[in-house]
Amino acid sequence: MLPSHSPKNNQSDFQWKLTCSPRAKSTFNPIRNFVQNMSVKPNPEKTPIRLSVGDPTEFGNLPIPQQAVQQLSENILSGKYNGYTLSFGSLEARKAIADYFSSSNYYPIQPQDVLLTCGTAGAIELVLSALGDEGKNVLVPKPGFPLFQTIANSLGMKTKAYHLKQEDNWQVDLADIVSQIDHQTVAIIVNNPSNPCGSVYTKEHLQDIVNLAEKCKIPIIADEVYANMCFDGVPFYSVASQSPHVPILSLGSISKLFAAPGWRLGWVIVHDRHDILRNAGIIQCLHQLTMRMLVPSSPIQSVIPILFSEQCRKEQLRIMEELQHNANTAYPLLESIPGLRCTKPQGAMYMFIHLDLNVLAFENDVEFTETLWKEESVFVIPGSCFGWNGAVRIVLNAPSCVLTEACSRLQSFCERHSRHG
Amino acid sequence: MLPSHSPKNNQSDFQWKLTCSPRAKSTFNPIRNFVQNMSVKPNPEKTPIRLSVGDPTEFGNLPIPQQAVQQLSENILSGKYNGYTLSFGSLEARKAIADYFSSSNYYPIQPQDVLLTCGTAGAIELVLSALGDEGKNVLVPKPGFPLFQTIANSLGMKTKAYHLKQEDNWQVDLADIVSQIDHQTVAIIVNNPSNPCGSVYTKEHLQDIVNLAEKCKIPIIADEVYANMCFDGVPFYSVASQSPHVPILSLGSISKLFAAPGWRLGWVIVHDRHDILRNAGIIQCLHQLTMRMLVPSSPIQSVIPILFSEQCRKEQLRIMEELQHNANTAYPLLESIPGLRCTKPQGAMYMFIHLDLNVLAFENDVEFTETLWKEESVFVIPGSCFGWNGAVRIVLNAPSCVLTEACSRLQSFCERHSRHG
Ligand SMILES: Cc1ncc(COP(=O)(O)O)c(C=O)c1O
Ligand SMILES: Cc1ncc(COP(=O)(O)O)c(C=O)c1O
Repeated sequence: MLPSHSPKNNQSDFQWKLTCSPRAKSTFNPIRNFVQNMSVKPNPEKTPIRLSVGDPTEFGNLPIPQQAVQQLSENILSGKYNGYTLSFGSLEARKAIADYFSSSNYYPIQPQDVLLTCGTAGAIELVLSALGDEGKNVLVPKPGFPLFQTIANSLGMKTKAYHLKQEDNWQVDLADIVSQIDHQTVAIIVNNPSNPCGSVYTKEHLQDIVNLAEKCKIPIIADEVYANMCFDGVPFYSVASQSPHVPILSLGSISKLFAAPGWRLGWVIVHDRHDILRNAGIIQCLHQLTMRMLVPSSPIQSVIPILFSEQCRKEQLRIMEELQHNANTAYPLLESIPGLRCTKPQGAMYMFIHLDLNVLAFENDVEFTETLWKEESVFVIPGSCFGWNGAVRIVLNAPSCVLTEACSRLQSFCERHSRHG
Repeated sequence: MLPSHSPKNNQSDFQWKLTCSPRAKSTFNPIRNFVQNMSVKPNPEKTPIRLSVGDPTEFGNLPIPQQAVQQLSENILSGKYNGYTLSFGSLEARKAIADYFSSSNYYPIQPQDVLLTCGTAGAIELVLSALGDEGKNVLVPKPGFPLFQTIANSLGMKTKAYHLKQEDNWQVDLADIVSQIDHQTVAIIVNNPSNPCGSVYTKEHLQDIVNLAEKCKIPIIADEVYANMCFDGVPFYSVASQSPHVPILSLGSISKLFAAPGWRLGWVIVHDRHDILRNAGIIQCLHQLTMRMLVPSSPIQSVIPILFSEQCRKEQLRIMEELQHNANTAYPLLESIPGLRCTKPQGAMYMFIHLDLNVLAFENDVEFTETLWKEESVFVIPGSCFGWNGAVRIVLNAPSCVLTEACSRLQSFCERHSRHG
């Protein structure tokens, strides 16, 4: 018998006075918000081309290495990987990650230096939770991936944006970092290769960054989710490879490297050769925080060793070839369009395109984006989602022919909307 | 070229002055900590029997419904479920959950009332993040599952424990709830069926609880991860089935019901018929918080509809039969041991056993637990992990013969350690 629904009870509703957490209120992800709440409809006469979310699975052309898929399917059937694992992840998975990243690192990495997380997003949440709370701040790149701010704000922390120099292949403005650091700064976030810029830092630039961190005594959070995802022979150096001293928390995941964002498996690698983080209790905090059990799924953990096997890494190169081909296809096409200005991508899977609003008849990047979707059915993300007005980001994940079609639609779109007729 | 490792640089380490977040420091999960850091070794002459972690997969006797396993394996091979989903979960999964729980609810539940999370743990984290932050508190049961406190503390919130009445089949002490509520109280957490008590509340008791919440104008968080997991015909009523008025956030997962804790998929169901949560902005906050992307894996989401299908639910009954059989086997065996006193479990998968330390020659429940492990290789969890000294919890997941063996080891153990010789 359900209780009766009396009007008297109804009245009492007026007395409920709930509030939501200010931290939750300030938790805002502009990309997700833009994509999930887009109300403009695409042109029904043109097939939609979504170059918006950095999801390598969007078009089906960038497959997860086949052996890992096969193994995962078998592991599911075996029934052996359905239980809880250690809260910081299975030893086998952590060992595979430690081995893979040891080769490119200053010192070998041990399994105990690795903690598994729910994607790179979970890794960001984990390290920020350990390093700071209310009133603290972290330095983030601008333009930059907005999730740093989303998660920092959800923890009551602030972000302070440091400038990337567009004219200098989006290198870090070191002086700006120094000027932004204050007594509440708990970390500098470096994202290399960069989303949205598609830039890859040189070894020398990374050395400048770690030297600065060492001088200022601020640890580095290195978001290296695009580690080793470089084009045309550009080498990738991890931040941790450039310093045996500075405490560095390197973050990554299988989301982009192995084209498996929906699998939600990422990691934190702790580089703390001189026990600076350990002595501050931060490593213990990281472990305690994993006991909240916001951890990646066990079957997925079970295929990490095979994903990092030689065979799967070879297959992974196919993903890289396609992305590189796409970068090389799209760059000249877009660069030649009046009103657009691009930096040639060196890595990751994006191209960040400056809009010259003296040439293009739009108020701002959001208007450009919405109109492009409405007229050309091409979905891009406005630069303002990355803290950089007057630009748009496209993802290089589409098959080459689709990307070419998108570029040609962009061309006619920009011509049609030129202020110069 | 790696930078040189000069002694000068080494010295500068002494100047690093990092601290970790006080919130992170206070993030502590006593069960995980106890299990992951147990240093006592079991008796090498007795096969270890772990009745410690509430993991239905531990012994291989409680299988995930076969059709869902099959489907998951196929979905993996299809390559169709590897991308990001909506941040609050795929429509199909949310619809399946809404449909399943609609039948036992006051009003039908819609897919938009459901948000997917990384297990029930993720659901707890999500709702607490939306409802409160620094300085707020939530009411939690005692004895109770410690993860509420772990997560609340990680958010800077406090928990205030309200008493469960052992003598009254572990019903809620309503007067104690009222006395604990203060101006900072953002929610009452009710856990039914209960971990660790194994109790299941009657409809009348639930009505008393919702009436109290309505009077005090405090929303309820109903941890119903053991929904429908009852023994011997005891009926399960959800908290939300007892009130169309009180805002209720019901939490659950596939971890126990379908024996898939490693799959890490849970949910929040929002019951807010009178828009009390909505008007306070809490529903929007819940959605914004999902955009941190700490979300369950996409392939797992893809099998939620099949898990809740009639066929899988029928298979699930086999899990329940086994747990019920185990409860009925273990209860009389343990109840007859001098020094132990149990309440007969009505649901969930636990038995909470009172230790009479006037009879048993131990200082406390931790000493009992460690000695039991050392001498009898039976691993249980001390009641103090649940805020209740002088008790232990066992999990009813072992095959009947293993459980019987554990009970007989407990019997000789208690006899051997009796104060009365
Ligand atoms: C720089 C950066 N960090 C983190 C993430 C989140 O990745 P994941 O899917 O592994 O959580 C992304 C995703 O686009 C990213 O670009
Ligand atoms: C009452 C209760 N809530 C939540 C959880 C966490 O469950 P999940 O594995 O779905 O995160 C458990 C697990 O034991 C539990 O007993």
